[in-house]
Amino acid sequence: MEADGFRTLDEKSLVEYIKATPALSSKLGNQLDGLQIKEVGDGNLNFVYIVVGSTGSLVIKQAIPYIRCIGETWPMTKERAYFEARALKEHGHLCPDHVPEVYHFDRTMSLIGMRYLEPPHIILRKGLIAGVEYPLLAENMSDYMAKTLFFTSLLYLSTTEHKRAVSEYCGNVEICRLTEQVVFSDPYKVSQYNHCTSPYLDHDAEAVRNDNDLKLEVAELKAMFCERAQALIHGDLHTGSVMVTSDSTQVIDPEFAFYGPMGFDIGAFLGNLFLSFFSQDGHADQGNDRRAYKKWILTTIEETWNLFEKKFTTLWNEHKDGPGEAYLPDIYNNPKLQLLVQKKYMENLLYDSLGFGAAKMIRRIVGVAHVEDFESIQDAGKRADCERKALNFAKMLMKERRGFKTINEVVATIQ
Amino acid sequence: MEADGFRTLDEKSLVEYIKATPALSSKLGNQLDGLQIKEVGDGNLNFVYIVVGSTGSLVIKQAIPYIRCIGETWPMTKERAYFEARALKEHGHLCPDHVPEVYHFDRTMSLIGMRYLEPPHIILRKGLIAGVEYPLLAENMSDYMAKTLFFTSLLYLSTTEHKRAVSEYCGNVEICRLTEQVVFSDPYKVSQYNHCTSPYLDHDAEAVRNDNDLKLEVAELKAMFCERAQALIHGDLHTGSVMVTSDSTQVIDPEFAFYGPMGFDIGAFLGNLFLSFFSQDGHADQGNDRRAYKKWILTTIEETWNLFEKKFTTLWNEHKDGPGEAYLPDIYNNPKLQLLVQKKYMENLLYDSLGFGAAKMIRRIVGVAHVEDFESIQDAGKRADCERKALNFAKMLMKERRGFKTINEVVATIQ
Repeated sequence: MEADGFRTLDEKSLVEYIKATPALSSKLGNQLDGLQIKEVGDGNLNFVYIVVGSTGSLVIKQAIPYIRCIGETWPMTKERAYFEARALKEHGHLCPDHVPEVYHFDRTMSLIGMRYLEPPHIILRKGLIAGVEYPLLAENMSDYMAKTLFFTSLLYLSTTEHKRAVSEYCGNVEICRLTEQVVFSDPYKVSQYNHCTSPYLDHDAEAVRNDNDLKLEVAELKAMFCERAQALIHGDLHTGSVMVTSDSTQVIDPEFAFYGPMGFDIGAFLGNLFLSFFSQDGHADQGNDRRAYKKWILTTIEETWNLFEKKFTTLWNEHKDGPGEAYLPDIYNNPKLQLLVQKKYMENLLYDSLGFGAAKMIRRIVGVAHVEDFESIQDAGKRADCERKALNFAKMLMKERRGFKTINEVVATIQ
Repeated sequence: MEADGFRTLDEKSLVEYIKATPALSSKLGNQLDGLQIKEVGDGNLNFVYIVVGSTGSLVIKQAIPYIRCIGETWPMTKERAYFEARALKEHGHLCPDHVPEVYHFDRTMSLIGMRYLEPPHIILRKGLIAGVEYPLLAENMSDYMAKTLFFTSLLYLSTTEHKRAVSEYCGNVEICRLTEQVVFSDPYKVSQYNHCTSPYLDHDAEAVRNDNDLKLEVAELKAMFCERAQALIHGDLHTGSVMVTSDSTQVIDPEFAFYGPMGFDIGAFLGNLFLSFFSQDGHADQGNDRRAYKKWILTTIEETWNLFEKKFTTLWNEHKDGPGEAYLPDIYNNPKLQLLVQKKYMENLLYDSLGFGAAKMIRRIVGVAHVEDFESIQDAGKRADCERKALNFAKMLMKERRGFKTINEVVATIQ
C-alpha cells in the first residue's frame, strides 16, 4: 500500500474489495462465490476487470500512477480516475442511453465500479476492422455529442456554473499535458516515442516535421485546446472509446475529460472513422473487397456530422430562452439573426472539428500510439500505402479546413 | 459589522485600522497623529482613501458588496478585492515600474493598502481631456502590456502553471459577468441602465440594437471573453485605470483581472484613446483647436500597438527556449517558421484588440457607464456629434477588423 492509501488490486484482493463495498456487492446480488474475473485492460493506461457472478455483473476500472503501455518511466496521475468518474456521471446524466452507469467511485483507490457492457458489445474499432455495419452509430453518436456538448456549454449554462466547472476540471491538467504532447507536439518533432511503418513512411514522417504550413496550423489548434473552455469534452473520443452492438452505442473512458473545444471530440470521432476508411484496403480479401463497407463509413461520417448539427441546433432552439448566457433572447431572438448566428457557430465548429480530426489522424500514423485499424494489416508495404493515403488526406484537411462549408464536401474529396 | 467580519470603514475607523496594522503604520513612520485623510473614490465601485502623514503616505482601497455608482440594488462580490490584490502583486512583479506596490491585503475586510501615487499623478483620462501630451505613454503602456500578457501566457508558462492560475481566477466570475453584461449585452438590447445623449443619439442607439452584423460580431467577441484563457489580463484597462505624470505611468484597479483574451486589455486601452480622440472637438476652443493634440493621440495609438508588438515578440524571442509550452523549440526554432508563427499570432491579436476596442467604445456611448471625455462636453448637440463619430468608427472597426493588417491602416481611416 502506498502512503496515500492507494494499492493496486489484483484478482484476489479485488474480491475482498467488492465484498467490503455494498454498492458493488449488491450489484452481484451479494453472491460472491464463484465469481468470474477477467482482466481486459487492452487500453494504454489502466487495469480493467470484468466481474461476472450468478445474478449480476460489473466492471472495475483502476487507474495506476503511470502509463501502462509505457511503464513506470512515464508517470501519470491516478487522479484521472476522479475526472473519469465525474465525467461519466455528468455525461451519463445528460445522455443516459449512451453512457454506462457508475455504481461506485473510490478516489483513494482511483477505482470506478460501473456497468459491464455485456456481449455482444465490442469495441467499435474492432467492429470496424471486422467490417461490421452499425446502422445506429451516426444516430447515437450524434445524440451523445449534441447532448454532452450543448448542455455543458455557455449556450445552456450560466457563466457562474460554467466557470465553476471549468475551474474544477483544470485539475485534470496532467492528462491535458499528455494530449498536448502526443497529439500536438511529438508528431511534429523527433521524439523517442514516435514510430511509423518504417522504412516505407520514414520520408513521410520527416515531411511532417518539415512542413511549416502544417506546424502553423497545429499551433493554432494546440492553443485552442489549451485555452478555450467551450464545453465538457470527453477528451479521447476515438473509436476505441465506444462499445457497440447492432442496437447499442456506449461511450466509455472519459478520463481525458475537461472543459475544452467541442471540435476536439467531434474531430476525434470523425478522424478515427476516416482512419478506418483508409485502412479498409488493407483488410480487403477475395471474399470481401470492402468497397460497400468503405461507402458505409463515408456515409456514417456525413450522417454523424449532419445529424449532430441538426440535433445541436434543435437543442439550441429549444433552450434559447433558457439559462445559457451566450446568446441572450433580448438580443438574439430574432429569427433571421438566430439563423445567422447558428450558421456561423456551426461553420466554425466544423472547421475546428476538421482541424482536430486531422491532428488526431496524423498522430496515429507518425506519433507514439497507433491504431489497430492499421497495425493489424500484416503486410507492411500494404499498411504503409493505407497510412500514407490517410496521412496525406489529414494534411490537406488541416491546411484547407476553412474551405469546406459542409461535411459532404469533405467526403467528396475522397470519392 | 457583517457576520463575515467585514465592516465598511470610515475616516475615523480607518485610523484605528491603520494603527492596528504594522504593515500600514510603518509606511507612515508610525506617526499617526495629524494624518490627512481624503476619500477620493471617483470610480464606480469602491471606497478609496488617501492617507498622508508627516513622514509617509499610502492609499487604502476597500471594496463594498455592491456597485457604488448604482447602489445596493446592484450587489457585487467584495471578493473582487482579493483578485485585485493578487493581480497587483503578480503584474507588479512582472512590471514593477508601472504597477503600484501593495503594502497590505486583508481578505476579510476586502481592503488593500498600497502606494499613494503622489501629485502630480493624475488619472490619464483627465489629462487627455485637459489636452496634455504624455511623451512616455506609448512606451510605458506597451511595456506594461507586453510584460504582463507575455509572462502569464502559455508562451512563457507551462500548462501546469497556467491551468492552476486559470482555475484560481475563475473565482472572479461575478466581475466577469458584470463585464459580459455591460460590455457585450446591454448596449445591444433595451436595458434599464442604458442611456445616451438624448434625443440626438436615440436613433443611433436603436440602430445598434437592430444591427445584425454587429450583433454577430459581438457574440463572437463575447464567446472569446468567456471561453479563452489566454493570459492574466487587467480586465478594465481604460484610461481611467492609468495614472500619469510626464515621467511616470502607473496602472491601477485590476479588480476585473482574470485569465482572458489579451486583446481585451489592448483593445480597452486603444479604444479609450480613440474615444478621447473623438471627444477632442468638443473640448476645442479659441485658444486651442486641439488639432495638434488629436494628431498626438493618433500617433500614440500607433506607437502603443507597434511598440507592444515589438516588445512582445522580443520577449518571445528571448524566451523561446524557456518554460513556455505553446511553441516548443524542437518544433518551432527554425527562423523562418518562427517569423511566420509570430506574424500570425500578432495579426490575430490585432484583430482581437480592434474588436474588443470597438466593443468598449460602443458601450461607453450607448451603455450604462459613460466616459468623462464626452460627459464633460456641456453642449449636448456638440457632444452627440462627437459621440456619433466615435460610434460609427467603432461599428466599422468591429465589422471590418480582419481587413486591417496594421494599426497604421486603422488610424489612416480617420485621417
